Amino acid sequence: MSERIDIAVIGAGPAGLNAGLYAARARLAVAVFERGSPGGQVLTTSEVENYLGFESISGPELAQTFETHARNSGADIRHFVDVEKILPATDPLVGHEIVTGEGSVFAGAVIIVTGASPNKLGVPGEEQFAGRGVSYCATCDGNFFRGKNVAVIGGGDTAVEDALYLSHIVGNVTVVHRRDELRAQKVLQERLFERSNVEFAWNSKLGEVKGDDISVTGIALTDPDGNSSTSIDVHGVFVAVGLKPNTQVVPDGVKMEDGWVITDQRMHTNIPGLFAAGDIRQNALKQISVSVGESAVAATEAGRYLDEIGWDTVGIKVDAEEAVS
Amino acid sequence: MSERIDIAVIGAGPAGLNAGLYAARARLAVAVFERGSPGGQVLTTSEVENYLGFESISGPELAQTFETHARNSGADIRHFVDVEKILPATDPLVGHEIVTGEGSVFAGAVIIVTGASPNKLGVPGEEQFAGRGVSYCATCDGNFFRGKNVAVIGGGDTAVEDALYLSHIVGNVTVVHRRDELRAQKVLQERLFERSNVEFAWNSKLGEVKGDDISVTGIALTDPDGNSSTSIDVHGVFVAVGLKPNTQVVPDGVKMEDGWVITDQRMHTNIPGLFAAGDIRQNALKQISVSVGESAVAATEAGRYLDEIGWDTVGIKVDAEEAVS
Repeated sequence: MSERIDIAVIGAGPAGLNAGLYAARARLAVAVFERGSPGGQVLTTSEVENYLGFESISGPELAQTFETHARNSGADIRHFVDVEKILPATDPLVGHEIVTGEGSVFAGAVIIVTGASPNKLGVPGEEQFAGRGVSYCATCDGNFFRGKNVAVIGGGDTAVEDALYLSHIVGNVTVVHRRDELRAQKVLQERLFERSNVEFAWNSKLGEVKGDDISVTGIALTDPDGNSSTSIDVHGVFVAVGLKPNTQVVPDGVKMEDGWVITDQRMHTNIPGLFAAGDIRQNALKQISVSVGESAVAATEAGRYLDEIGWDTVGIKVDAEEAVS
Repeated sequence: MSERIDIAVIGAGPAGLNAGLYAARARLAVAVFERGSPGGQVLTTSEVENYLGFESISGPELAQTFETHARNSGADIRHFVDVEKILPATDPLVGHEIVTGEGSVFAGAVIIVTGASPNKLGVPGEEQFAGRGVSYCATCDGNFFRGKNVAVIGGGDTAVEDALYLSHIVGNVTVVHRRDELRAQKVLQERLFERSNVEFAWNSKLGEVKGDDISVTGIALTDPDGNSSTSIDVHGVFVAVGLKPNTQVVPDGVKMEDGWVITDQRMHTNIPGLFAAGDIRQNALKQISVSVGESAVAATEAGRYLDEIGWDTVGIKVDAEEAVS
């Protein structure tokens, strides 16, 4: 017989671990499935300063702290397990089928928190200096570059918003764009053109990120055909050429826009019993605190959903010694 | 001349402190106004176990940790300052006027995070045992009562949801309601009636919370006229008779429902430049993590708004020594 649990959480980034925490605190049988190690993008972040309560902590340490908290609360965190697909319930009381490499699990509610991945440029030095000057998140890392010079790569809304954001913090911003005009909303473009500390490298692509043993020292640009053109001294490189939602396991029939999952303010997708939170949501601000907050909502709503459909709860057993009051 | 800042945050609970953190990290001049001490409802919480990353911390200690983080990031936290009213901008580039007991401040954007307060019953023992057995939040505190007997006071949606939530965690739940039927949605009522560990005290009001030196030991009930009827042994009393949004400073013209502020998913109210986050929002899940996540969104959106209208940024000066790279 297949395993039966109350709530399946797909992905163990901050959203997944907090969904696990909330479901476990409601004493629901919850499993958090993760194909790699728990932590999500936090794992590859060198330093986190903007999760309220932790002034400065390394990404791996914060991921570990989150995982320990969720695990100690009773969440069953299953790492290195590949979820192959999710088959939405035909009978809600039988549950949704989570098909993994190790067999199927049936869950009354499913919370999809598989996140998103930034597009990379694949140029020399980019990977080497990731977290040491190369960043994919201006809101996360801008403050590390106060008063210094940085480059933003891209010409869409995110690139222009990042450049505006950074222009209040850093010394100079150079926007590197492969065309001769930006794609972003006109009003944002106008504001950016007004900033005295923003320059533009038009018709330019990032050729290489250069640095020393410690961090980034500059970038080499090329023309659109890849011929080397010029170099700029910068301490930071913000790559803003888009994000990809990790939607491989999102079942057919879930409403999406441009590849991102649509939910209402309470994290319900259009399929009953299926919830989503964090970076995979359309329009989500990609921040640890946002993922954590949204997943608290998703887990609470998932618990309510189970009560509403009259799901026969598996639950987490109360420890005998704790039950004695 | 009046003081001019970039962003005014009204309220210094978790939402307000995190809005301060995010705005300050964007190097915007941000002031967080608080009529009491920073921390909001967290200050009166004895123990917090459900803010991801802190397995167990006292409310006052967590509030202090939050405040220190926000303050060190550059947020100007002004406690014991009464905001009397907010006058929305007629000219966006002049800003919204924050009228305080100490004069007016003009801010390009305003984030309202004044929260909500639980209704109290005002019976003997209620205040004395608050945080030591009397709780106003089942999601927050239910897990402290694993396997023990508790009472839920109320008969609306929240009371029934709380009772359902608790029924998965505690020994027995007694729902105390002053009428002979519940007001909650029928489907929730049905689910509650099905739970084997839930009992009902109909036509009953809470008369008194009893306890010893440490915690709650029981409650005394009365009939609707206040005549004493019976006593029950419980370790926990969950008061679920409604919450009041703290909307004293919300300006006329802001769209509300049942007294709660309506925003879109990005925390914009209907008035440009005016944002709201956390407990004051309609339908918000009242949890620290949710307030923190929503305020990150509100502060980021407020920054974007200032860029869009072409606000002449006041900013936070970069420290000279930090500016030297």
